[in-house]
Amino acid sequence: MFYLSTDTICAISTPAGQGGIAVIRISGGEAIKICNKIFTHAGGFLLGEGRRGASPAFGRIFRGEEILDEVLVSVFHAPRSYTGEDVVEISCHGSLYIQQEILKLTLANGCRLAAAGEFTQRAFFNGKLDLSQAEAVGDLIAASSAMSHRVAMQQMRGGFSHELAALSDKLLNFTSLVELELDFSDEDVEFADRKQLKDLALQIATVICRLIDSFGAGNAIKNGISVAIVGETNVGKSTLLNRLLRDEKAIVSDIHGTTRDVIEDTITIEGLLFRFIDTAGIRNTNDKIEQLGIERTFQKIEQAAIVLWVIDLTQEIFDFRFLNFDWNIIKNQKSKMILTLNKADMLTNEEREQKTAYYSSLHDDFIVISAKSDADIAALERTLVETANIPQIGENDVIVTNLRHFEALSKALSSIEKVIEGLDTGITGDFLAQDIRECLSHLNEITGRQITTEDVLGNIFSKFCIGK
Amino acid sequence: MFYLSTDTICAISTPAGQGGIAVIRISGGEAIKICNKIFTHAGGFLLGEGRRGASPAFGRIFRGEEILDEVLVSVFHAPRSYTGEDVVEISCHGSLYIQQEILKLTLANGCRLAAAGEFTQRAFFNGKLDLSQAEAVGDLIAASSAMSHRVAMQQMRGGFSHELAALSDKLLNFTSLVELELDFSDEDVEFADRKQLKDLALQIATVICRLIDSFGAGNAIKNGISVAIVGETNVGKSTLLNRLLRDEKAIVSDIHGTTRDVIEDTITIEGLLFRFIDTAGIRNTNDKIEQLGIERTFQKIEQAAIVLWVIDLTQEIFDFRFLNFDWNIIKNQKSKMILTLNKADMLTNEEREQKTAYYSSLHDDFIVISAKSDADIAALERTLVETANIPQIGENDVIVTNLRHFEALSKALSSIEKVIEGLDTGITGDFLAQDIRECLSHLNEITGRQITTEDVLGNIFSKFCIGK
Repeated sequence: MFYLSTDTICAISTPAGQGGIAVIRISGGEAIKICNKIFTHAGGFLLGEGRRGASPAFGRIFRGEEILDEVLVSVFHAPRSYTGEDVVEISCHGSLYIQQEILKLTLANGCRLAAAGEFTQRAFFNGKLDLSQAEAVGDLIAASSAMSHRVAMQQMRGGFSHELAALSDKLLNFTSLVELELDFSDEDVEFADRKQLKDLALQIATVICRLIDSFGAGNAIKNGISVAIVGETNVGKSTLLNRLLRDEKAIVSDIHGTTRDVIEDTITIEGLLFRFIDTAGIRNTNDKIEQLGIERTFQKIEQAAIVLWVIDLTQEIFDFRFLNFDWNIIKNQKSKMILTLNKADMLTNEEREQKTAYYSSLHDDFIVISAKSDADIAALERTLVETANIPQIGENDVIVTNLRHFEALSKALSSIEKVIEGLDTGITGDFLAQDIRECLSHLNEITGRQITTEDVLGNIFSKFCIGK
Repeated sequence: MFYLSTDTICAISTPAGQGGIAVIRISGGEAIKICNKIFTHAGGFLLGEGRRGASPAFGRIFRGEEILDEVLVSVFHAPRSYTGEDVVEISCHGSLYIQQEILKLTLANGCRLAAAGEFTQRAFFNGKLDLSQAEAVGDLIAASSAMSHRVAMQQMRGGFSHELAALSDKLLNFTSLVELELDFSDEDVEFADRKQLKDLALQIATVICRLIDSFGAGNAIKNGISVAIVGETNVGKSTLLNRLLRDEKAIVSDIHGTTRDVIEDTITIEGLLFRFIDTAGIRNTNDKIEQLGIERTFQKIEQAAIVLWVIDLTQEIFDFRFLNFDWNIIKNQKSKMILTLNKADMLTNEEREQKTAYYSSLHDDFIVISAKSDADIAALERTLVETANIPQIGENDVIVTNLRHFEALSKALSSIEKVIEGLDTGITGDFLAQDIRECLSHLNEITGRQITTEDVLGNIFSKFCIGK
């Protein structure tokens, strides 16, 4: 029984590794009792009994007769805790040995090791958070940029939930009226004003559309904007990536065809996460492994939001035509390509202008840089942010970042469109009520108001880290 | 001013990385005031004011108008805190972004980033811990085996300090009496009974000797027992190491001479830490890089506590004599060598007995194994524990693990030996008093009762992790 378990769970909640302190979290009906078995309060009080047994309590963790550690214990009584159950947090010295041994002691005294996300899952079941808020906790912890943090925080605070609840309440109100008509179906009355209902349905469709539209930006904010760095061998792609990443992830050498594997790394520019993909250099080659790398490069171009096509200005004019690649992908703007004319510092002014003129005639979006120049790298970063074109997100803007939510909203939209169509064609109340219910059900999937299946929950919480 | 700083310091105290929660610790006179600038209590109370402002307080961290995180804050008022100063611990969501941003906020509002070990250093200056206890905090956090943990815990709880204090108090008592005589030097009195003083000095010398002797075991427990795995190329050294480490750290291949670098890794066997050193295979070679590796191997043999000399029983009898190596190192028992006769499973019983007989005639300590057999690996582990020969450490045994302590004890011993010699030769009270004072001073260096120099303190606390 994945989501009905009421046993007492424990986990190390702080990041894995050695540090000054670490926190072991216990939640469940037996949390205080189990902790009292292994913990001795310096003042001789029992945890959870009276004011003196309240938190934070200083004392010792014993393993049999031996003192394992001196710790601070905080007790949070149900329902005023993160999970809504009794929660005990043991703050111990952060050695790996101590963390493991205290965890073992709690297990030996009746706890079970928490599954990933199980604390948050219990918070959901105990009504501390709705499902979209619970998901936002996971997103918040994973957020590595200012933007993704802001969007997750807004969702965790319930901004998205409130917006959905408002839509849902209005719909529920109308569907009750429509369903009331059904009880009086012999009498041919209309409690629900069809004109008002259509206005409402249109209004809801508009809001849902706005939320669905926000998913493009939301997804880019959450998962990062993918940037493929593409070009011939030895034009300085790896060097450029290193400069952008400010470390030495990619192996740089003067031998053609060094980068055969696709290397991914991320950086934050102006609060936005960019996911860089280094690719194998493109050239005519008979090396099978290199050919495979080049094939992957073309795949990456199709998947990337932005393509930085790097040209070495010191080399002969690059002839794009020999490439066996469908340029429509670029032309159709699925990916945005920026011609990145590199090594500009090694040319005379005249040469540079000549070559730049040629390449700019091929493609509108281009930038002339020297990867060695800090100012040029900064300009390239600026260009990336502009090209990504993510709208500024205000603190209170609701943005959809979750594929599950996007899919539920898409289904809700098609239901509400059926309602509008039905109103136009004048379908009967019972069909109308069914379509409204369907729309409601999809909206409620998101917050978990609707009964959610075990599979969906398992899928949501298994992505969490252990200890949250 | 390294150790007189009274500004308010902050650091992330939990292990580096992403997790469910993280803790940011602030200590100093402004800790509560600074936290009140960035934290808003859910109930509207100020931290540190009255019972409602007490910990743990739930609320929000603000960066300007924006909510950065929802957190729990614990306040510990001076002097009842870890450092003896006002301490605030902010328990936030464990995203890297949130951890960094809250840290930045505390810095922007008047905190300084704590140096490594600075919280514990403040605890020392505020008399919460003596110096040897403070050092034990660092050892406790670094402890990765049951034994090293036990020894550090005993030291942190003050076991070592108490033992030293007892010696020190007795000496101080006597030195006062001797010094009193000096005030009455014209009258030729003896307040301090020379017979009793000698008994005491002998007793103290015995205790110091015992402590000094414990350093061998203490150092092995704390830093691990070094085991060099040595042998010809391709006798299965790396495979054996992998089997002991239970992972794939060393690159295993069938090509002779794969392991050129010295690879170190540790495991815990029966609560003891062993530090394994894989070495380059020994053979006659012209490869310069390989020759360097072999030279390093011989250095490692000299440094190791235990040498596992691996022999491949399927190969021809190994002729030790061609090696340009000083065997006295092994003979003098600086290192203990175990001939490890490997690949025993690939021989007939007859062959195995014949070869084993030959090698056992060369060296007393040998073990016949197959690295593939779990039972044999377990037997080898048992042999390692027996060969290490670390005495069982009881929970209350005082063991010296710290080189600084060892050195101070050695100096104290030579001072107390001068006292004993002086008593035997009947030197005057003023010389006697000087020697006793010297011994006292060395003992007090350990606990920091004696004024300790800035250099010594800097050296001690810089080895700590940040945040403790």
